[in-house]
Amino acid sequence: MPVSTRARVPSKALRQAILDMTGFIQSGYHGNSRPQHEIAFDDLRAIVNRVIEDENRVLSEQCAANGIGTSFGSARFEDHHVVAVMDETGQVTARFETDNVLISTGSRPRHPIDLPEEPELFLDSDEIFKMNSLPKSLIVLGAGIIGCEYATMFAALGIEVILMDRRDDMLRMLDAEISRTFTNYIQQMAGLTVKLGQDIETLRKSSDGRGEVVLKDGGSLVADRLFYSMGRIANVDGLDLDKAGIELDKLGYIPVNALFQTAQPHIYAAGDVIGQPALASTSVEQGRLAIRNALMLKSHHFPEFFPYGIYAIPKISSVGPTEEELQKLGVHYEVGRALYSEMARGPIAGDTQGMIRLIFHAETLEMLAVHIIGTMATELIAIGQIAINLRVKADYFVDTIFNYPTFAEGYRIAALNGLNRLEGPGAAKWS
Amino acid sequence: MPVSTRARVPSKALRQAILDMTGFIQSGYHGNSRPQHEIAFDDLRAIVNRVIEDENRVLSEQCAANGIGTSFGSARFEDHHVVAVMDETGQVTARFETDNVLISTGSRPRHPIDLPEEPELFLDSDEIFKMNSLPKSLIVLGAGIIGCEYATMFAALGIEVILMDRRDDMLRMLDAEISRTFTNYIQQMAGLTVKLGQDIETLRKSSDGRGEVVLKDGGSLVADRLFYSMGRIANVDGLDLDKAGIELDKLGYIPVNALFQTAQPHIYAAGDVIGQPALASTSVEQGRLAIRNALMLKSHHFPEFFPYGIYAIPKISSVGPTEEELQKLGVHYEVGRALYSEMARGPIAGDTQGMIRLIFHAETLEMLAVHIIGTMATELIAIGQIAINLRVKADYFVDTIFNYPTFAEGYRIAALNGLNRLEGPGAAKWS
Repeated sequence: MPVSTRARVPSKALRQAILDMTGFIQSGYHGNSRPQHEIAFDDLRAIVNRVIEDENRVLSEQCAANGIGTSFGSARFEDHHVVAVMDETGQVTARFETDNVLISTGSRPRHPIDLPEEPELFLDSDEIFKMNSLPKSLIVLGAGIIGCEYATMFAALGIEVILMDRRDDMLRMLDAEISRTFTNYIQQMAGLTVKLGQDIETLRKSSDGRGEVVLKDGGSLVADRLFYSMGRIANVDGLDLDKAGIELDKLGYIPVNALFQTAQPHIYAAGDVIGQPALASTSVEQGRLAIRNALMLKSHHFPEFFPYGIYAIPKISSVGPTEEELQKLGVHYEVGRALYSEMARGPIAGDTQGMIRLIFHAETLEMLAVHIIGTMATELIAIGQIAINLRVKADYFVDTIFNYPTFAEGYRIAALNGLNRLEGPGAAKWS
Repeated sequence: MPVSTRARVPSKALRQAILDMTGFIQSGYHGNSRPQHEIAFDDLRAIVNRVIEDENRVLSEQCAANGIGTSFGSARFEDHHVVAVMDETGQVTARFETDNVLISTGSRPRHPIDLPEEPELFLDSDEIFKMNSLPKSLIVLGAGIIGCEYATMFAALGIEVILMDRRDDMLRMLDAEISRTFTNYIQQMAGLTVKLGQDIETLRKSSDGRGEVVLKDGGSLVADRLFYSMGRIANVDGLDLDKAGIELDKLGYIPVNALFQTAQPHIYAAGDVIGQPALASTSVEQGRLAIRNALMLKSHHFPEFFPYGIYAIPKISSVGPTEEELQKLGVHYEVGRALYSEMARGPIAGDTQGMIRLIFHAETLEMLAVHIIGTMATELIAIGQIAINLRVKADYFVDTIFNYPTFAEGYRIAALNGLNRLEGPGAAKWS
């Protein structure tokens, strides 16, 4: 049974609702990148809630259809084989003696700095939906994936956003050209200011009742609300893992082996609670493999190639190594690019800033990696992923017919671009 | 060089502009499928024109970058190796003596019935952009691909549309379940009425100056405008093909062999002018292969598997045979379905009516066909296409990690669905 996960739905639904309501991407292409009318946060919330309800309903139906019982509450281990479930008052409402356990309790936002007790002013990604209305200005602390996603979303709504980070660069895990494209894009985004290399002294409520960031260099920034996205920590509090004989690693995650077994072979763990990559997609697959291992069903190792998706504006998705990683490995590769502005589909979608980047082996032509920034990046990456998994050569795309107009045909344009950059005795003119 | 084609851009750009401006798909999911405000046709046209200009600019740049000269006008053969170009007055402005010729003059809407001389009232897909304003009501004659595309687009704009055809069914080339889903969808579309099995007696201007269709059964339908989409015919008039030694087939197309050579081996033809499939995507590839053949560059036969795309609301795309074709061939197949309503991405996009349908061999599990209806269908089909081309088995998708939430993960859901429907000794429980 394919099990969905709810953790990432609200922000994805919020992102889509904002794009739908503002027409942000298209209006950028047509010369006006600020919303024409005020968007009510209640309307956005209603859309997000509808999506979450639908998702919950599908999950419940799938559980019921597959004979999976459910028990809601806080769980704790009583010994290696007994899990108790408690209600909000701490009363035990159920107790399960079981052969196997899967721990998939997820993670929550980290609060690494002292936050004033001002839940209205200082919010994390779990709390953002509790806002009564949209602020006029917002400081986003932490320019990681979640920070970039929310900063660009709120800027698209017409909110003045400052995105800040202690580090001097953003999203360093990305292929450098994609990261540069993203940074250039958001630096031109109306209403969004990026401030990197900012050391924070303290956070406080300003004298006029707003959120204030005092910097170590003496400067200060003020906004209506402050959103922090400074990493996440595993949800293990109260699980009484010691009673199960499980210890955490030094980052606070549950260590597992390649079969997703913890130190206790009958207890499995999967998802954010075991640490990286902590994506909804990889967490679902980890959980599936863990259960298959526990029930001795046909299984396999966790796949080597899987996509990363960043649901910022614009979207980013990657599969395989970055160009920089291949350089370090000394691989002889070539890069092919297709700009969304070169494809008929780009202008139609109002997105002329995106790019598909293929990396393939310069001698064997085998596909090594795909990095995409722009509309539908998270969907399009699946084409490159199957190509990499099946050791497809870049010239496959040259001779493939894609629907017209689509972004998918960018694979063909990118392959041609890269193949025509090849040099040496094997190089041919591709067209 | 990847050469784009302009023929299909205006309708695709119009479709996207309508969806963007009306929020039609999302508003359907949220309980209101009629536009909230009137959309000005001038605004739509401005968007479409901007897209066409961008596309023309990219084309010109590509021609210039690749040293391709251009000469604009009407062409006619003077003999097997000489082509003259004329301006609008019939004056010859250029004359080319050449080793090879590629005829790719496309097609235009067919006018199979007597049309009154009322260019304001009776329009085809080339003329629709000449309207001064949007009509309140519209009759679409011909429920083929183009008729379905325009009928659904105009209905999404809030226009009262009647879609009629002489036949009793629509889009018969489609997999039957996809066709049923499409028919159900558009029959519930507010403002769109489907009337099949209607024999037309005549078309005329009604007494109150509108467009009228008089039926053979004595009935009559009236609307502000009448749009006809009753097939297309090859653009060969004035080419003086007889001087080149080329005859048309009985449907009026230029016959070619597998290398796209006409009866004269040095004269090639590609695109709509040679008949089916007459898609923008296949036409581009035909043209590319024809040129490569003419210049004796490395080439290959036209691919067996390519996608069909229908840019209606909802979109439809297919690769490989329909279920009905496989039945006739006696292939032992199985079908796997994923409904957009089951995927987290469906509700987020406001599309819970779409479906991905995989067909694979019930014994070898090899992928045979994919049929998709719904958002991004024309992009998503590329994943199934590469799988079919590379003889991938359906269980590949079960063990693949897709970004979450995406429509692409529907391949996984559909594969699980189909694999779990397998019976017999080889059947296993997939999860």
